[in-house]
Amino acid sequence: MLGECNPEKYPLQLKNRPSLEYLREIAHLRFRTNTFGAVFRIRHSLAFAIHKFFNEKGFVYLHTPVITASDAEGAGEMFRVSTLPFDNPPRKEDGTIDFAEDFFGRATNLTVSGQLEGELGATAFSEIYTFGPTFRAENSNTARHLAEFWMIEPEMAFCDLEDNMNLAESFIRYLIRYVMENNREDLEFLATRLAEEEKQKPQAERSEMGLIEKLEFVVNNDFERITYTEAIDILLQSPAYKKKKFQYEVKWGIDMQSEHERYLVEKHFKKPVIVTGYPAAIKAFYMRQNDDGKTVAAMDILVPGIGEIVGGSQREERLERLEARMKDMHIPTEEMWWYLDTRRFGTVPHAGFGLGFERMMLFVTGMTNIRDVIAFPRAPKSAEF
Amino acid sequence: MLGECNPEKYPLQLKNRPSLEYLREIAHLRFRTNTFGAVFRIRHSLAFAIHKFFNEKGFVYLHTPVITASDAEGAGEMFRVSTLPFDNPPRKEDGTIDFAEDFFGRATNLTVSGQLEGELGATAFSEIYTFGPTFRAENSNTARHLAEFWMIEPEMAFCDLEDNMNLAESFIRYLIRYVMENNREDLEFLATRLAEEEKQKPQAERSEMGLIEKLEFVVNNDFERITYTEAIDILLQSPAYKKKKFQYEVKWGIDMQSEHERYLVEKHFKKPVIVTGYPAAIKAFYMRQNDDGKTVAAMDILVPGIGEIVGGSQREERLERLEARMKDMHIPTEEMWWYLDTRRFGTVPHAGFGLGFERMMLFVTGMTNIRDVIAFPRAPKSAEF
Repeated sequence: MLGECNPEKYPLQLKNRPSLEYLREIAHLRFRTNTFGAVFRIRHSLAFAIHKFFNEKGFVYLHTPVITASDAEGAGEMFRVSTLPFDNPPRKEDGTIDFAEDFFGRATNLTVSGQLEGELGATAFSEIYTFGPTFRAENSNTARHLAEFWMIEPEMAFCDLEDNMNLAESFIRYLIRYVMENNREDLEFLATRLAEEEKQKPQAERSEMGLIEKLEFVVNNDFERITYTEAIDILLQSPAYKKKKFQYEVKWGIDMQSEHERYLVEKHFKKPVIVTGYPAAIKAFYMRQNDDGKTVAAMDILVPGIGEIVGGSQREERLERLEARMKDMHIPTEEMWWYLDTRRFGTVPHAGFGLGFERMMLFVTGMTNIRDVIAFPRAPKSAEF
Repeated sequence: MLGECNPEKYPLQLKNRPSLEYLREIAHLRFRTNTFGAVFRIRHSLAFAIHKFFNEKGFVYLHTPVITASDAEGAGEMFRVSTLPFDNPPRKEDGTIDFAEDFFGRATNLTVSGQLEGELGATAFSEIYTFGPTFRAENSNTARHLAEFWMIEPEMAFCDLEDNMNLAESFIRYLIRYVMENNREDLEFLATRLAEEEKQKPQAERSEMGLIEKLEFVVNNDFERITYTEAIDILLQSPAYKKKKFQYEVKWGIDMQSEHERYLVEKHFKKPVIVTGYPAAIKAFYMRQNDDGKTVAAMDILVPGIGEIVGGSQREERLERLEARMKDMHIPTEEMWWYLDTRRFGTVPHAGFGLGFERMMLFVTGMTNIRDVIAFPRAPKSAEF
């Protein structure tokens, strides 16, 4: 007997099975439950499998910076990092805040992606990957968004979109296989949990496959590969579209909504789908411009129940094209001199992608709220522990 | 021929061997040199070896939060994380800043350590480790400090100070052995580089051992283990002390300075030293109080050329003692309710330590400036790339 525990006061009571919502409020103790024990042992395995996969392939693990002065990627709203006092910050003569007085001598933020720095690494080591925390200051209080989450971003020199898709697909399969081999008991526990949760749903909303069946299916079947244009055609010809069941408009050029992605993977193909060749107008500046003048060499991987799990592209390696695109999008090329140097001094075709670690966790564990697959979730109005 | 490179303008010129200082200014290209190629391949191996070591021992990898509302550890100055506008932040009636309006509904900072959350994990999984970025907003422009660095923090339940030291020692040996087996060529290159650098120094300042000899020595010899009290006695009886060569005072109770630590490891023992039983007054609130009423069950590992590389302790698992200590040190126990819950509900003896990843990198690579072992260093007035 090492430490006492007053059973009347212990926040984890067996009498009434505690809800996931309640357990989120006592995230410091929820690891002690069977469900979260299983979830976080799987999280460990998945993280280890990621390092193992890339190590075996000779990729170099690159720690890209968390604090960054670059806000050029435009991937979303950012958190300001500062040591200036809010009460009375130093000001320039014109009255604006003088960030030259800040810790780093300039305004800095939390990173939204390590990709741009990853590209610097790939042009030296050929193949690198990052695995670190990334941040979005978006006021989204949903079951799919976190303000702080972990991302894996491999970047490969001498690699085109096709190679990129092949790597991403074999990567996802490797991770699932690793967890199936190393966490069988935890997966079985979570499969039972999910099956019980599904029983509460109306018949029509239940999954056709159990958790382990679903994972086996992904390991044993190729992902479907379609172009964005084909995806839009499928949607336009779908019964859902004809019965006006989509809330958002469907036409070439849209940024597909979750309902469209889910229709493609859950209803039409019933398997993971890789969509390529998105309209340039809805994608980032660094994606390689296709010869058609309107699409880019992007690829997103969509999986059942989750939606987008991977976003990637071949990068624009041609300096003139890249600069022209940046100017069109009002991205300051002077601040990005270091990024453009990779195109200036011995440029190479290269490509990469980002995998959202917590989205992958949702897929593998069958949990439905992203706050239940990260130890101490950070979300609007929520930074406990 | 894929991408042109104007040899007149290329920042990496072979004619004059570029200095490390110059290469820091072009950190986006320095990976392409032999030296930094070797350094960052070793960084990859070291990171992989860390995960491999803990995975083999059944530790669970825990991602502790980067953004935290807790500022109770008192480990150093912190960076504020916010989405409030500096120009015109919301204020309460009394004129103070209203952080309830901030993104997380409270004031938040970048973490200085994942230990407290790690302890939560250890009381559920028995053995966990963290490996993530940590931050210090200290205005130290030295070759040993970074504002953003990576740290490894294992935490073990049912573990005392002795077990903790044994783990730390075998961990460091494992890492060195792994790099010696997997990065022989890179180590030899860096050993040659270091030997050339040493030749520039006066005879008396040169290391007695080459890089690889030093690493072999650490792998093959036990670390010296002494108490803080013994360390102070050794210093007081040293020729250096008698000849008044120490700049800072030596007496029981001091927080040993770098010159003292270096004397112990470089002159006296000539090997890594583990110092235990530090005065409570100079150590953190969570360290276990020894029966003598004046020391705590702390341990620091000091290595030649670097100084402190590991800091750890057995944690105070006795609720009353912990609360009393926190009150003495003016640490708000109410805010730390979640931390104290681990002592309230089934407390166990536990211990852990922190290894500074970049300090370990310095030791293994023989590089002397910490900015040369992290891809994109963050330091006062410096957040390039």
